[in-house]
Amino acid sequence: VEVIDMNKSAPAAVESKPDFGYLLAERTSNMGASIIRETLKVASRPGIISLGGGLPAPESFPLEIIGELTSRALKKYKSLVLQYGPTEGFPPLREALVDLLAGRGIDVSADDIIISTGSQGALLEIGKILISKGDKVAVEAPTYMGALAAFNPYEPRYLSIETDDDGVIPESLDRLLSGHRVKFIYLVPTFQNPSGRTVPDSRRREIAEIVIRHQALIIEDDPYSALRYRGKPVPPIKIYAPDNVVYLSTFSKILSPGMRLGFCVAPPLIKKWMVLAKQGIDLHTSSLDQAIASEYITGGYLERHLPTIVDVYRPRLERMLAAIESSFPDGFESSHPEGGMFVWAAGPDGFDAERLYWKAIDRGVAFIPGKYFYTEKGMGNETMRLNFTMSDPETLERGIAILAAVIKDEMN
Amino acid sequence: VEVIDMNKSAPAAVESKPDFGYLLAERTSNMGASIIRETLKVASRPGIISLGGGLPAPESFPLEIIGELTSRALKKYKSLVLQYGPTEGFPPLREALVDLLAGRGIDVSADDIIISTGSQGALLEIGKILISKGDKVAVEAPTYMGALAAFNPYEPRYLSIETDDDGVIPESLDRLLSGHRVKFIYLVPTFQNPSGRTVPDSRRREIAEIVIRHQALIIEDDPYSALRYRGKPVPPIKIYAPDNVVYLSTFSKILSPGMRLGFCVAPPLIKKWMVLAKQGIDLHTSSLDQAIASEYITGGYLERHLPTIVDVYRPRLERMLAAIESSFPDGFESSHPEGGMFVWAAGPDGFDAERLYWKAIDRGVAFIPGKYFYTEKGMGNETMRLNFTMSDPETLERGIAILAAVIKDEMN
Repeated sequence: VEVIDMNKSAPAAVESKPDFGYLLAERTSNMGASIIRETLKVASRPGIISLGGGLPAPESFPLEIIGELTSRALKKYKSLVLQYGPTEGFPPLREALVDLLAGRGIDVSADDIIISTGSQGALLEIGKILISKGDKVAVEAPTYMGALAAFNPYEPRYLSIETDDDGVIPESLDRLLSGHRVKFIYLVPTFQNPSGRTVPDSRRREIAEIVIRHQALIIEDDPYSALRYRGKPVPPIKIYAPDNVVYLSTFSKILSPGMRLGFCVAPPLIKKWMVLAKQGIDLHTSSLDQAIASEYITGGYLERHLPTIVDVYRPRLERMLAAIESSFPDGFESSHPEGGMFVWAAGPDGFDAERLYWKAIDRGVAFIPGKYFYTEKGMGNETMRLNFTMSDPETLERGIAILAAVIKDEMN
Repeated sequence: VEVIDMNKSAPAAVESKPDFGYLLAERTSNMGASIIRETLKVASRPGIISLGGGLPAPESFPLEIIGELTSRALKKYKSLVLQYGPTEGFPPLREALVDLLAGRGIDVSADDIIISTGSQGALLEIGKILISKGDKVAVEAPTYMGALAAFNPYEPRYLSIETDDDGVIPESLDRLLSGHRVKFIYLVPTFQNPSGRTVPDSRRREIAEIVIRHQALIIEDDPYSALRYRGKPVPPIKIYAPDNVVYLSTFSKILSPGMRLGFCVAPPLIKKWMVLAKQGIDLHTSSLDQAIASEYITGGYLERHLPTIVDVYRPRLERMLAAIESSFPDGFESSHPEGGMFVWAAGPDGFDAERLYWKAIDRGVAFIPGKYFYTEKGMGNETMRLNFTMSDPETLERGIAILAAVIKDEMN
C-alpha cells in the first residue's frame, strides 16, 4: 500500500498481518501529509533559526491567569463546565462575544454566534455542508492551506483569484464569478497567512458589491485582525455584505491556540446546517475551555492582556522589516504588514525559493517556500513566507542577515 | 428550501435575502436533526421525570479537584497547555493511558495511542478515511445512533447484525460477512447504548475468530466498561483480535463529557490515516483538557474518584431494575445490565412504544422509543431505552411506577 509515511511512530505493516489498505475510501488519498508540516520538521532541528513556523510565541500567552480564570469558571458555572453542552456553544461565551464582535463592527446577538473547535472546526463544517465532489471553490493565490485540508476530503476544484499588494483584486473576483458557479469564496482579508497582506477598506466595499451582485458566498477567515501593531483597523467584509459572508475568527491568537476555540457568524440557513454538521463532528466544543474563554472576556482580562501580545510582536515585525529592507538585494520585494504573524517576500522572476530553502537550512535558517501556498502548480516559485512571532528581534535580525547572504550567493 | 427547523434561534430566511439553500451539498440532506434530540427537548419540560437522556449525573463529576488538576498541569507543563500540540495527542496523556489500557487488558505503548475530540472525533476520522458512498457498514440492531451521525455524511449502507440478551449473535455476524464485503463492523460490546447488554467473554472469542477469518475490521466502542456496578469485568474484543480491532474509549463517563476527550488504539495503517484525517478536522484536541486528564490519571485522582461514580450509579440501576421487576406487566422483558447507563425494555409483539411515549409524557415520564436505535424501519417498535443516571433512586422508582401504570392502561 502506497502511503506517505509522515507518522514516524507507526511501524511498517508486517506482511502476515492485515493492513487494511484495501479498506481506504477513495477520498483518503487526497489527505496526504502536509508538505508544510514536513518542511517544519526539518526546520525544528536544534540550532535552526526558524522563520518557518506559524505558532504564536509562548510568551504571548496569559499563562499566569489561566488558574484564576478556571477558578472563576468553576465557581460561576459549577458542573456545567464538565457536562455536555449545546452544539451552538456555551451560552455565556456566545453572550460575551457579542461585545467583542461589536468592537469589530459586527452587530449581532448571541443567538447569531456559534462556537467551533478552532476555526478549523468551522471550516470543516462549511466544507461538509456545501461541497459536493467537483464543486468549484474560489481561493486567493496564495491561500491558507489549512483551510484546504478541511475542504479537500469533499473533493472540490479550486479556482484562483489574482492578488496584488492589497490582496484580492476585485476585477479578478468579478471575472471569476461571471464565468463560474462557485460554492463559495474563501478569503483571509486581514494580515493574510501566508502573505501578511490586508485588503484596504475601499476594496472591501468593492468585493462586497461584487458578491451581492453575484449572490455569492464569502467565507471571511479572520484569525489575525486583533494583532494590529500599527495603522488603523479595517472593518471586516462582513459588515458590507452581512447576508453574503460567513465570518470566522478564533481565540488562537488572543488567548491560546491549544484550547481550540473558534467562533462564527453566518447567514441563518448556513448557520443552521453548520450546527447540524457539528453534531456529527464533535457534538460540541469543550465546555471547560469555553467557560474559561468566557471569563477571559467578561472579566476584562482580554482587554488588559491584548496590549501585552501586541508589545511582544510589534518589535519583531519592525526588526524583520528593517532587516529585509537593509539586506535583501535589488529585485526582492516584501509585504509590509501592519500586524499578524507573517511577511511575504518575492524574488525576481525565475528565482527558485525551494532551492534557496535547502541552502538556507544548511546555513541554519528555515522558512516556507511560497509555492506551497498555491493551488495551481508553477505559481509562486519565487516567493517565501517569513514568520516573525517565534524568535526575539535580535535572532530575527540574524536570521534575515543569513538569509540575505544565501540569497546573494544564489543570485550570483 | 426544505429543512428541518431544529434550530429555534435561526430566524426564517426573508424572501429578499439570499438563503443559499441552493449551495448545499448532496450529502447535507443526510444530516437531519436527530429525532432523539427532538424527543429529548420534549422530555426536558419542567416537572418531567426523564428516563430519556444519556447524560452522566453532575454529582458524578470530580468538580472539586478540577482547579487542583489545572494548577498541577500549569505548573508541570507551563505554556505547553496553551500551545498548539501534536495531532496524535499530548504526549504525557498518551503515556498515562498506557497503564489505564493495561488495566483493561490492552498492552500497548504510548505511540500506539491517539487522542480524539471525544469518541465522536475518532468515529468521524474512521468514517472519513474508510467510507465511500454506498460502502457497507455492519451495525448491531439496535445500535448507537451518535456513531451513525459520524458515518452518515459519507453515505454508507448499513447492514444489521442480529442480537439477543448477550448482544451480537456470532452466527449472524458470520453469515453477514460471508455474504457481504463490509468496510467495518461497529460494536458497543459492553453495557451497550441503547440496550445495556454486554457480550460475554466466550462470545467475544467467537467474534474475534470470525473477524480474523474474514479479515474484517471491528470498531469496538467502549465508553462504559469502567462503570461496572457488579459482576466481573469482561476483556475487550481487542485483546482477542488485536490486528482487527480499532478500540475506542473516552473520558466522558470517568471525568467529564464536556471536555470532549477520547482515546483510541488502532492497527498501524488505520492509525496513521486517522491522524492525517484529524489534521484536517481539528489539528489536535485541546491541550489544556488533555493536560488536565493526564494529571487526573497520573496523580491517582481517577483511581480514587471512580468508586464515587460507581456508588452514585449502583443504587440507581438496582432500584430501576427492582421497580421494573415488580411493576411491569407480564409480557414485558428488560435487560439486566451490570453497569453503564441504560436499561432496555421490550413489550410483547405489536406493542407500540412510540404511542406509549406520548401517553407517558402526559403523565410526566419520558423515555426514548427503541425504534429510533434501529437502522431498518419496522424494527424495535415494542422497545424502549430507560436511562437511570440522571435521577435519584426514589425518583426513578416513581418514574417506573408511573410508566408501568401507563403501560397497563395501554395494554387493556
